[in-house]
Amino acid sequence: MHALIVLAHPSPLSFNAALAGMAAAGCEQAGHQVRVTDLYAERFEARLDRDDMGGNAPEGYFNVGREQARAWRKGTLAADIAAQIEHLRWAELVILQFPLWWYGPPAILKGWMDRVFLPGFSYGSENWFETGGLAGKKAMLSITSSVTDEPYMSDGRFGELDVTLWPLHVSLRYVGFDVLAPFITFDVESSDQGRRAIVDRLRHRMAGIASERPLFFHRHEEFGADHRLLPGIKGRTVAQRGTGRQRSKGQS
Amino acid sequence: MHALIVLAHPSPLSFNAALAGMAAAGCEQAGHQVRVTDLYAERFEARLDRDDMGGNAPEGYFNVGREQARAWRKGTLAADIAAQIEHLRWAELVILQFPLWWYGPPAILKGWMDRVFLPGFSYGSENWFETGGLAGKKAMLSITSSVTDEPYMSDGRFGELDVTLWPLHVSLRYVGFDVLAPFITFDVESSDQGRRAIVDRLRHRMAGIASERPLFFHRHEEFGADHRLLPGIKGRTVAQRGTGRQRSKGQS
Repeated sequence: MHALIVLAHPSPLSFNAALAGMAAAGCEQAGHQVRVTDLYAERFEARLDRDDMGGNAPEGYFNVGREQARAWRKGTLAADIAAQIEHLRWAELVILQFPLWWYGPPAILKGWMDRVFLPGFSYGSENWFETGGLAGKKAMLSITSSVTDEPYMSDGRFGELDVTLWPLHVSLRYVGFDVLAPFITFDVESSDQGRRAIVDRLRHRMAGIASERPLFFHRHEEFGADHRLLPGIKGRTVAQRGTGRQRSKGQS
Repeated sequence: MHALIVLAHPSPLSFNAALAGMAAAGCEQAGHQVRVTDLYAERFEARLDRDDMGGNAPEGYFNVGREQARAWRKGTLAADIAAQIEHLRWAELVILQFPLWWYGPPAILKGWMDRVFLPGFSYGSENWFETGGLAGKKAMLSITSSVTDEPYMSDGRFGELDVTLWPLHVSLRYVGFDVLAPFITFDVESSDQGRRAIVDRLRHRMAGIASERPLFFHRHEEFGADHRLLPGIKGRTVAQRGTGRQRSKGQS
Protein backbone atom coordinates (compact mmCIF):
# COMPACT_ATOMS: atom_id res chain seq x y z
CA MET A 1 0.00 0.00 0.00
CA HIS A 2 1.11 3.61 -0.61
CA ALA A 3 0.90 5.63 2.62
CA LEU A 4 1.02 9.44 2.71
CA ILE A 5 1.61 11.09 6.06
CA VAL A 6 0.67 14.76 6.26
CA LEU A 7 2.33 16.47 9.24
CA ALA A 8 1.13 19.81 10.60
CA HIS A 9 3.23 21.03 13.53
CA PRO A 10 5.57 24.06 13.59
CA SER A 11 8.33 22.36 15.58
CA PRO A 12 10.41 19.65 13.86
CA LEU A 13 11.23 18.25 17.31
CA SER A 14 7.61 17.99 18.43
CA PHE A 15 5.97 14.77 19.53
CA ASN A 16 3.74 15.15 16.47
CA ALA A 17 6.83 14.98 14.27
CA ALA A 18 7.97 11.91 16.21
CA LEU A 19 4.59 10.25 15.71
CA ALA A 20 4.70 10.99 11.98
CA GLY A 21 8.11 9.33 11.87
CA MET A 22 6.88 6.32 13.82
CA ALA A 23 3.84 5.94 11.59
CA ALA A 24 6.15 6.03 8.57
CA ALA A 25 8.44 3.40 10.11
CA GLY A 26 5.47 1.25 11.09
CA CYS A 27 4.06 1.38 7.56
CA GLU A 28 7.44 0.50 6.04
CA GLN A 29 7.83 -2.43 8.42
CA ALA A 30 4.41 -3.66 7.27
CA GLY A 31 5.70 -3.59 3.69
CA HIS A 32 4.07 -0.35 2.54
CA GLN A 33 5.68 2.49 0.60
CA VAL A 34 5.66 5.80 2.47
CA ARG A 35 5.82 9.51 1.75
CA VAL A 36 5.80 12.20 4.43
CA THR A 37 4.75 15.74 3.58
CA ASP A 38 5.70 18.20 6.34
CA LEU A 39 3.50 21.23 5.67
CA TYR A 40 5.45 23.62 7.89
CA ALA A 41 8.85 22.55 6.55
CA GLU A 42 7.55 22.97 3.00
CA ARG A 43 6.11 26.38 3.90
CA PHE A 44 2.75 25.29 2.52
CA GLU A 45 0.48 28.32 2.13
CA ALA A 46 -2.62 28.11 4.34
CA ARG A 47 -4.74 30.83 2.77
CA LEU A 48 -6.86 29.94 -0.22
CA ASP A 49 -6.54 32.97 -2.47
CA ARG A 50 -6.63 34.19 -6.04
CA ASP A 51 -2.94 33.25 -6.44
CA ASP A 52 -3.92 29.57 -6.14
CA MET A 53 -5.45 29.74 -9.59
CA GLY A 54 -2.34 30.96 -11.37
CA GLY A 55 -3.57 34.45 -12.05
CA ASN A 56 -6.70 33.32 -13.84
CA ALA A 57 -9.27 34.36 -11.29
CA PRO A 58 -10.93 37.72 -11.98
CA GLU A 59 -9.68 40.69 -9.97
CA GLY A 60 -13.09 41.52 -8.54
CA TYR A 61 -15.68 38.95 -7.54
CA PHE A 62 -14.78 35.34 -8.10
CA ASN A 63 -16.56 32.12 -7.22
CA VAL A 64 -14.01 30.09 -5.32
CA GLY A 65 -15.06 26.60 -6.42
CA ARG A 66 -15.55 27.60 -10.04
CA GLU A 67 -12.08 29.18 -10.27
CA GLN A 68 -10.47 26.22 -8.52
CA ALA A 69 -12.09 23.84 -11.00
CA ARG A 70 -11.04 26.01 -13.94
CA ALA A 71 -7.41 26.18 -12.74
CA TRP A 72 -7.45 22.41 -12.24
CA ARG A 73 -8.69 21.82 -15.81
CA LYS A 74 -6.23 24.29 -17.31
CA GLY A 75 -3.30 23.09 -15.22
CA THR A 76 -2.63 26.52 -13.74
CA LEU A 77 -2.86 25.62 -10.05
CA ALA A 78 -0.15 26.91 -7.70
CA ALA A 79 2.83 24.57 -7.44
CA ASP A 80 2.31 23.70 -3.77
CA ILE A 81 -1.26 22.59 -4.51
CA ALA A 82 -0.23 20.58 -7.56
CA ALA A 83 2.42 18.77 -5.50
CA GLN A 84 -0.13 17.77 -2.88
CA ILE A 85 -2.55 16.57 -5.53
CA GLU A 86 0.19 14.37 -6.94
CA HIS A 87 0.76 12.94 -3.44
CA LEU A 88 -2.95 12.25 -3.02
CA ARG A 89 -3.23 10.50 -6.39
CA TRP A 90 -0.31 8.29 -5.43
CA ALA A 91 -1.60 7.51 -1.92
CA GLU A 92 -3.88 4.67 -0.92
CA LEU A 93 -3.78 5.60 2.77
CA VAL A 94 -3.54 9.18 4.08
CA ILE A 95 -2.68 9.90 7.71
CA LEU A 96 -3.18 13.44 8.97
CA GLN A 97 -0.90 14.03 11.98
CA PHE A 98 -1.61 17.16 14.00
CA PRO A 99 -2.22 18.69 17.43
CA LEU A 100 -5.84 19.58 18.19
CA TRP A 101 -5.91 23.38 18.37
CA TRP A 102 -9.23 24.99 19.24
CA TYR A 103 -11.03 21.72 18.64
CA GLY A 104 -9.78 21.54 15.09
CA PRO A 105 -6.75 21.22 12.84
CA PRO A 106 -4.00 23.86 12.81
CA ALA A 107 -4.77 26.49 10.16
CA ILE A 108 -2.05 25.14 7.87
CA LEU A 109 -3.89 21.81 7.69
CA LYS A 110 -7.30 23.44 7.29
CA GLY A 111 -5.74 25.38 4.42
CA TRP A 112 -4.50 22.12 2.92
CA MET A 113 -8.12 21.00 2.81
CA ASP A 114 -9.40 24.37 1.53
CA ARG A 115 -6.83 24.51 -1.27
CA VAL A 116 -6.26 20.86 -2.26
CA PHE A 117 -9.73 19.30 -1.96
CA LEU A 118 -10.89 21.16 -5.03
CA PRO A 119 -13.80 20.48 -7.35
CA GLY A 120 -12.86 18.48 -10.41
CA PHE A 121 -10.14 16.64 -8.55
CA SER A 122 -11.71 15.59 -5.27
CA TYR A 123 -15.41 15.95 -5.98
CA GLY A 124 -17.97 16.92 -8.58
CA SER A 125 -21.72 17.31 -8.88
CA GLU A 126 -22.27 13.53 -8.84
CA ASN A 127 -18.96 12.62 -7.28
CA TRP A 128 -19.06 12.93 -3.55
CA PHE A 129 -19.15 10.71 -0.50
CA GLU A 130 -18.68 7.09 -1.65
CA THR A 131 -18.42 8.27 -5.25
CA GLY A 132 -16.01 11.13 -4.45
CA GLY A 133 -12.81 11.75 -6.35
CA LEU A 134 -10.72 9.98 -3.73
CA ALA A 135 -13.01 6.95 -3.36
CA GLY A 136 -11.17 3.71 -2.69
CA LYS A 137 -8.52 5.44 -0.59
CA LYS A 138 -8.40 5.40 3.22
CA ALA A 139 -7.78 8.29 5.59
CA MET A 140 -7.06 8.47 9.30
CA LEU A 141 -6.68 11.35 11.72
CA SER A 142 -3.80 11.05 14.20
CA ILE A 143 -4.31 13.71 16.83
CA THR A 144 -2.53 14.86 19.95
CA SER A 145 -4.23 16.64 22.82
CA SER A 146 -2.64 18.15 25.90
CA VAL A 147 -5.48 16.95 28.15
CA THR A 148 -6.72 13.55 29.28
CA ASP A 149 -9.67 11.79 27.67
CA GLU A 150 -12.15 12.76 30.40
CA PRO A 151 -13.11 16.25 29.13
CA TYR A 152 -13.84 14.61 25.76
CA MET A 153 -16.43 12.17 27.05
CA SER A 154 -20.16 12.66 26.41
CA ASP A 155 -20.47 14.20 29.88
CA GLY A 156 -17.16 16.07 29.63
CA ARG A 157 -16.42 19.76 29.62
CA PHE A 158 -15.36 19.83 25.96
CA GLY A 159 -18.09 17.48 24.75
CA GLU A 160 -17.81 14.17 22.97
CA LEU A 161 -14.68 13.94 20.83
CA ASP A 162 -16.59 12.33 17.95
CA VAL A 163 -18.68 15.51 17.73
CA THR A 164 -15.57 17.69 17.62
CA LEU A 165 -14.13 15.49 14.87
CA TRP A 166 -17.31 15.35 12.79
CA PRO A 167 -16.43 18.33 10.53
CA LEU A 168 -13.11 16.68 9.64
CA HIS A 169 -14.50 13.19 9.24
CA VAL A 170 -17.41 14.25 7.06
CA SER A 171 -15.03 16.33 4.93
CA LEU A 172 -12.81 13.32 4.33
CA ARG A 173 -15.86 11.25 3.49
CA TYR A 174 -17.22 13.98 1.19
CA VAL A 175 -14.21 13.61 -1.10
CA GLY A 176 -14.55 9.83 -1.06
CA PHE A 177 -12.21 8.49 1.61
CA ASP A 178 -13.00 5.47 3.70
CA VAL A 179 -12.38 7.04 7.09
CA LEU A 180 -10.60 4.91 9.66
CA ALA A 181 -11.06 5.38 13.40
CA PRO A 182 -8.82 8.20 14.63
CA PHE A 183 -5.60 7.54 16.52
CA ILE A 184 -5.78 9.78 19.58
CA THR A 185 -2.91 10.67 21.87
CA PHE A 186 -4.31 12.25 25.02
CA ASP A 187 -2.20 13.93 27.68
CA VAL A 188 0.65 14.36 25.20
CA GLU A 189 2.92 16.03 27.74
CA SER A 190 2.99 12.91 29.88
CA SER A 191 6.13 11.01 30.88
CA ASP A 192 8.65 9.43 28.54
CA GLN A 193 7.20 6.08 29.56
CA GLY A 194 3.73 7.23 28.52
CA ARG A 195 5.11 8.39 25.20
CA ARG A 196 6.82 5.07 24.58
CA ALA A 197 3.51 3.27 25.15
CA ILE A 198 1.85 5.59 22.62
CA VAL A 199 4.52 4.92 20.05
CA ASP A 200 4.15 1.15 20.56
CA ARG A 201 0.39 1.45 20.15
CA LEU A 202 0.83 3.39 16.92
CA ARG A 203 3.32 0.88 15.53
CA HIS A 204 0.93 -1.96 16.33
CA ARG A 205 -1.94 -0.11 14.69
CA MET A 206 0.08 0.48 11.51
CA ALA A 207 0.88 -3.23 11.24
CA GLY A 208 -2.79 -4.09 10.73
CA ILE A 209 -4.10 -0.93 9.13
CA ALA A 210 -4.68 -2.40 5.66
CA SER A 211 -7.43 -4.67 6.97
CA GLU A 212 -9.26 -2.22 9.24
CA ARG A 213 -12.95 -1.58 8.76
CA PRO A 214 -13.78 2.09 8.18
CA LEU A 215 -16.20 4.22 10.19
CA PHE A 216 -19.86 4.13 9.25
CA PHE A 217 -21.39 6.80 7.02
CA HIS A 218 -24.79 6.73 5.40
CA ARG A 219 -24.76 5.96 1.68
CA HIS A 220 -26.34 7.73 -1.30
CA GLU A 221 -29.29 5.33 -1.55
CA GLU A 222 -30.36 6.21 1.99
CA PHE A 223 -31.01 9.86 1.10
CA GLY A 224 -33.77 11.47 -0.91
CA ALA A 225 -33.31 14.22 -3.48
CA ASP A 226 -33.67 16.70 -0.61
CA HIS A 227 -30.50 15.25 1.00
CA ARG A 228 -32.45 13.96 3.99
CA LEU A 229 -32.68 10.35 5.09
CA LEU A 230 -35.50 8.41 3.46
CA PRO A 231 -38.61 7.54 5.51
CA GLY A 232 -37.89 5.15 8.34
CA ILE A 233 -34.12 5.33 8.11
CA LYS A 234 -32.63 6.27 11.46
CA GLY A 235 -29.48 8.39 11.54
CA ARG A 236 -26.51 6.47 12.88
CA THR A 237 -23.72 9.05 13.22
CA VAL A 238 -23.11 11.65 15.95
CA ALA A 239 -24.42 14.38 13.65
CA GLN A 240 -27.35 12.43 12.26
CA ARG A 241 -29.59 11.41 15.11
CA GLY A 242 -32.84 12.19 13.37
CA THR A 243 -35.04 9.83 11.41
CA GLY A 244 -35.97 10.46 7.80
CA ARG A 245 -39.13 12.47 7.12
CA GLN A 246 -39.30 14.43 10.31
CA ARG A 247 -40.78 17.19 8.23
CA SER A 248 -42.20 20.41 9.57
CA LYS A 249 -45.94 20.92 9.22
CA GLY A 250 -47.19 21.78 5.79
CA GLN A 251 -44.58 19.70 4.02
CA SER A 252 -45.47 16.42 2.43
CA MET B 1 -21.59 48.92 22.30
CA HIS B 2 -18.29 48.37 20.48
CA ALA B 3 -18.73 45.90 17.64
CA LEU B 4 -15.82 44.20 15.85
CA ILE B 5 -16.54 42.45 12.57
CA VAL B 6 -13.93 39.94 11.44
CA LEU B 7 -14.25 39.17 7.72
CA ALA B 8 -12.63 36.11 6.13
CA HIS B 9 -13.25 35.92 2.38
CA PRO B 10 -10.67 36.32 -0.40
CA SER B 11 -12.89 38.40 -2.68
CA PRO B 12 -13.68 41.99 -1.67
CA LEU B 13 -16.78 41.80 -3.87
CA SER B 14 -18.12 38.63 -2.25
CA PHE B 15 -21.50 38.36 -0.58
CA ASN B 16 -19.57 37.77 2.65
CA ALA B 17 -17.97 41.19 2.27
CA ALA B 18 -21.42 42.67 1.61
CA LEU B 19 -22.81 41.02 4.74
CA ALA B 20 -19.92 42.37 6.80
CA GLY B 21 -20.72 45.82 5.48
CA MET B 22 -24.42 45.42 6.25
CA ALA B 23 -23.69 44.19 9.77
CA ALA B 24 -21.48 47.24 10.27
CA ALA B 25 -24.20 49.57 8.98
CA GLY B 26 -26.82 47.84 11.11
CA CYS B 27 -24.70 48.21 14.23
CA GLU B 28 -24.05 51.87 13.51
CA GLN B 29 -27.75 52.52 12.97
CA ALA B 30 -28.38 50.93 16.36
CA GLY B 31 -25.96 53.42 17.90
CA HIS B 32 -22.95 51.16 18.27
CA GLN B 33 -19.35 51.92 17.34
CA VAL B 34 -17.94 49.58 14.71
CA ARG B 35 -14.59 48.29 13.49
CA VAL B 36 -14.17 45.89 10.57
CA THR B 37 -11.02 43.82 10.26
CA ASP B 38 -10.70 42.22 6.80
CA LEU B 39 -8.20 39.40 7.31
CA TYR B 40 -7.47 38.87 3.61
CA ALA B 41 -7.09 42.58 2.85
CA GLU B 42 -4.72 42.90 5.80
CA ARG B 43 -2.81 39.81 4.66
CA PHE B 44 -3.19 38.31 8.12
CA GLU B 45 -0.87 35.31 8.48
CA ALA B 46 -2.77 32.06 9.01
CA ARG B 47 0.08 29.82 10.20
CA LEU B 48 0.98 29.88 13.86
CA ASP B 49 4.76 29.69 13.84
CA ARG B 50 7.90 30.59 15.73
CA ASP B 51 7.85 34.06 14.10
CA ASP B 52 4.70 34.87 16.09
CA MET B 53 6.78 35.08 19.23
CA GLY B 54 9.20 37.72 17.96
CA GLY B 55 12.19 35.43 17.68
CA ASN B 56 12.04 34.30 21.29
CA ALA B 57 10.96 30.71 20.74
CA PRO B 58 13.80 28.17 20.79
CA GLU B 59 15.02 26.91 17.42
CA GLY B 60 14.37 23.27 18.26
CA TYR B 61 11.43 22.02 20.28
CA PHE B 62 9.09 24.62 21.63
CA ASN B 63 5.85 24.35 23.53
CA VAL B 64 3.38 26.44 21.57
CA GLY B 65 1.24 27.71 24.46
CA ARG B 66 4.20 28.43 26.70
CA GLU B 67 5.97 30.48 24.03
CA GLN B 68 2.78 32.34 23.15
CA ALA B 69 2.28 33.25 26.81
CA ARG B 70 5.91 34.35 27.17
CA ALA B 71 5.75 36.56 24.07
CA TRP B 72 2.50 38.06 25.37
CA ARG B 73 4.09 38.91 28.73
CA LYS B 74 7.23 40.30 27.13
CA GLY B 75 5.36 42.25 24.47
CA THR B 76 7.18 40.54 21.60
CA LEU B 77 4.17 39.20 19.71
CA ALA B 78 4.05 39.70 15.93
CA ALA B 79 2.43 42.99 14.91
CA ASP B 80 -0.58 41.39 13.18
CA ILE B 81 -1.41 39.45 16.37
CA ALA B 82 -0.96 42.51 18.60
CA ALA B 83 -3.32 44.52 16.38
CA GLN B 84 -6.03 41.85 16.66
CA ILE B 85 -5.61 41.67 20.42
CA GLU B 86 -6.12 45.42 20.59
CA HIS B 87 -9.33 45.01 18.55
CA LEU B 88 -10.56 42.27 20.86
CA ARG B 89 -9.86 44.30 24.00
CA TRP B 90 -11.83 47.18 22.52
CA ALA B 91 -14.75 45.04 21.33
CA GLU B 92 -17.86 44.14 23.31
CA LEU B 93 -19.40 42.21 20.42
CA VAL B 94 -17.41 40.19 17.87
CA ILE B 95 -18.99 38.96 14.65
CA LEU B 96 -17.09 36.39 12.61
CA GLN B 97 -18.22 36.60 8.96
CA PHE B 98 -17.12 33.72 6.73
CA PRO B 99 -18.12 31.08 4.19
CA LEU B 100 -18.35 27.54 5.57
CA TRP B 101 -15.51 25.65 3.84
CA TRP B 102 -15.19 21.96 4.63
CA TYR B 103 -17.58 22.33 7.54
CA GLY B 104 -15.37 24.91 9.20
CA PRO B 105 -13.86 28.37 8.94
CA PRO B 106 -11.46 29.30 6.12
CA ALA B 107 -7.87 28.62 7.22
CA ILE B 108 -7.20 32.35 7.61
CA LEU B 109 -9.88 32.54 10.30
CA LYS B 110 -8.77 29.31 11.97
CA GLY B 111 -5.30 30.85 12.07
CA TRP B 112 -6.76 33.97 13.68
CA MET B 113 -7.99 31.72 16.48
CA ASP B 114 -4.74 29.73 16.67
CA ARG B 115 -2.59 32.87 16.85
CA VAL B 116 -4.75 35.41 18.72
CA PHE B 117 -6.55 33.31 21.35
CA LEU B 118 -3.35 32.86 23.28
CA PRO B 119 -2.79 31.91 26.90
CA GLY B 120 -2.33 34.87 29.20
CA PHE B 121 -4.59 37.04 27.07
CA SER B 122 -7.63 34.89 26.34
CA TYR B 123 -7.36 32.15 28.94
CA GLY B 124 -5.28 30.84 31.82
CA SER B 125 -5.26 27.87 34.16
CA GLU B 126 -8.29 29.17 36.10
CA ASN B 127 -9.55 31.49 33.41
CA TRP B 128 -11.65 29.65 30.89
CA PHE B 129 -15.27 29.33 29.89
CA GLU B 130 -17.31 31.85 31.90
CA THR B 131 -14.12 33.06 33.61
CA GLY B 132 -12.12 33.27 30.36
CA GLY B 133 -10.06 36.27 29.37
CA LEU B 134 -12.81 37.60 27.11
CA ALA B 135 -15.67 37.06 29.58
CA GLY B 136 -18.38 39.68 29.39
CA LYS B 137 -18.01 40.04 25.63
CA LYS B 138 -20.39 38.53 23.07
CA ALA B 139 -19.53 36.65 19.89
CA MET B 140 -21.61 35.54 16.91
CA LEU B 141 -20.83 33.47 13.85
CA SER B 142 -22.25 34.77 10.56
CA ILE B 143 -21.88 32.02 8.02
CA THR B 144 -22.71 31.54 4.37
CA SER B 145 -23.29 28.17 2.76
CA SER B 146 -23.86 27.37 -0.89
CA VAL B 147 -26.50 24.77 -0.09
CA THR B 148 -30.00 24.89 1.39
CA ASP B 149 -30.72 24.10 5.02
CA GLU B 150 -31.94 20.55 4.35
CA PRO B 151 -28.57 18.74 4.29
CA TYR B 152 -27.85 20.39 7.65
CA MET B 153 -30.85 18.93 9.46
CA SER B 154 -30.52 16.09 11.95
CA ASP B 155 -31.51 13.64 9.21
CA GLY B 156 -29.50 15.47 6.53
CA ARG B 157 -26.55 14.34 4.50
CA PHE B 158 -24.10 16.70 6.22
CA GLY B 159 -25.51 16.19 9.72
CA GLU B 160 -26.94 18.70 12.13
CA LEU B 161 -25.42 22.16 11.70
CA ASP B 162 -25.11 22.64 15.46
CA VAL B 163 -22.76 19.65 15.54
CA THR B 164 -20.63 21.10 12.75
CA LEU B 165 -20.46 24.42 14.61
CA TRP B 166 -19.67 22.91 18.02
CA PRO B 167 -15.85 23.19 17.67
CA LEU B 168 -16.18 26.90 16.92
CA HIS B 169 -18.82 27.61 19.54
CA VAL B 170 -16.97 25.79 22.31
CA SER B 171 -13.75 27.60 21.35
CA LEU B 172 -15.47 30.96 21.67
CA ARG B 173 -16.92 29.91 25.01
CA TYR B 174 -13.53 28.59 26.19
CA VAL B 175 -12.05 32.08 25.98
CA GLY B 176 -15.03 33.54 27.79
CA PHE B 177 -17.45 34.84 25.17
CA ASP B 178 -21.18 34.70 25.58
CA VAL B 179 -21.98 33.01 22.28
CA LEU B 180 -25.03 34.27 20.40
CA ALA B 181 -27.03 32.09 18.03
CA PRO B 182 -25.34 32.01 14.62
CA PHE B 183 -26.64 34.00 11.66
CA ILE B 184 -26.81 31.52 8.80
CA THR B 185 -27.19 32.35 5.13
CA PHE B 186 -28.08 29.19 3.26
CA ASP B 187 -28.17 28.91 -0.52
CA VAL B 188 -25.97 31.98 -0.84
CA GLU B 189 -25.96 31.89 -4.63
CA SER B 190 -29.69 32.47 -4.76
CA SER B 191 -31.41 35.35 -6.53
CA ASP B 192 -30.88 39.04 -5.85
CA GLN B 193 -34.29 39.02 -4.21
CA GLY B 194 -33.17 36.25 -1.86
CA ARG B 195 -30.07 38.21 -1.02
CA ARG B 196 -32.05 41.33 -0.25
CA ALA B 197 -34.19 39.34 2.18
CA ILE B 198 -31.03 38.07 3.89
CA VAL B 199 -29.63 41.57 4.21
CA ASP B 200 -32.92 42.78 5.72
CA ARG B 201 -32.89 39.90 8.19
CA LEU B 202 -29.32 40.73 9.20
CA ARG B 203 -30.09 44.43 9.66
CA HIS B 204 -33.08 43.55 11.83
CA ARG B 205 -30.98 41.16 13.89
CA MET B 206 -28.33 43.82 14.48
CA ALA B 207 -30.95 46.28 15.75
CA GLY B 208 -31.73 44.04 18.72
CA ILE B 209 -28.45 42.24 19.25
CA ALA B 210 -27.51 43.97 22.50
CA SER B 211 -30.41 42.31 24.31
CA GLU B 212 -30.14 38.78 22.90
CA ARG B 213 -29.77 35.84 25.24
CA PRO B 214 -26.68 33.73 24.54
CA LEU B 215 -26.56 30.00 23.81
CA PHE B 216 -26.49 27.61 26.73
CA PHE B 217 -23.21 26.15 28.01
CA HIS B 218 -22.67 24.24 31.22
CA ARG B 219 -20.97 26.22 33.97
CA HIS B 220 -17.93 25.45 36.15
CA GLU B 221 -19.99 24.38 39.16
CA GLU B 222 -21.64 21.62 37.12
CA PHE B 223 -18.32 19.81 36.54
CA GLY B 224 -16.15 17.78 38.88
CA ALA B 225 -12.37 17.97 39.13
CA ASP B 226 -12.28 15.32 36.37
CA HIS B 227 -14.02 17.77 33.99
CA ARG B 228 -17.10 15.56 33.78
CA LEU B 229 -20.61 16.59 34.75
CA LEU B 230 -21.45 15.97 38.39
CA PRO B 231 -23.76 13.07 39.34
CA GLY B 232 -27.29 13.51 38.06
CA ILE B 233 -26.57 16.47 35.80
CA LYS B 234 -27.74 15.77 32.27
CA GLY B 235 -25.76 17.19 29.37
CA ARG B 236 -27.72 19.82 27.46
CA THR B 237 -25.59 20.64 24.41
CA VAL B 238 -25.19 18.75 21.11
CA ALA B 239 -21.80 17.46 22.27
CA GLN B 240 -22.80 16.68 25.83
CA ARG B 241 -25.63 14.20 25.78
CA GLY B 242 -24.32 12.04 28.59
CA THR B 243 -25.23 12.26 32.27
CA GLY B 244 -22.60 12.80 34.94
CA ARG B 245 -20.98 9.71 36.45
CA GLN B 246 -21.50 7.30 33.60
CA ARG B 247 -18.25 5.73 34.68
CA SER B 248 -16.81 2.55 33.25
CA LYS B 249 -16.66 -0.48 35.55
CA GLY B 250 -14.01 -0.42 38.21
CA GLN B 251 -14.19 3.33 38.69
CA SER B 252 -15.88 4.81 41.71
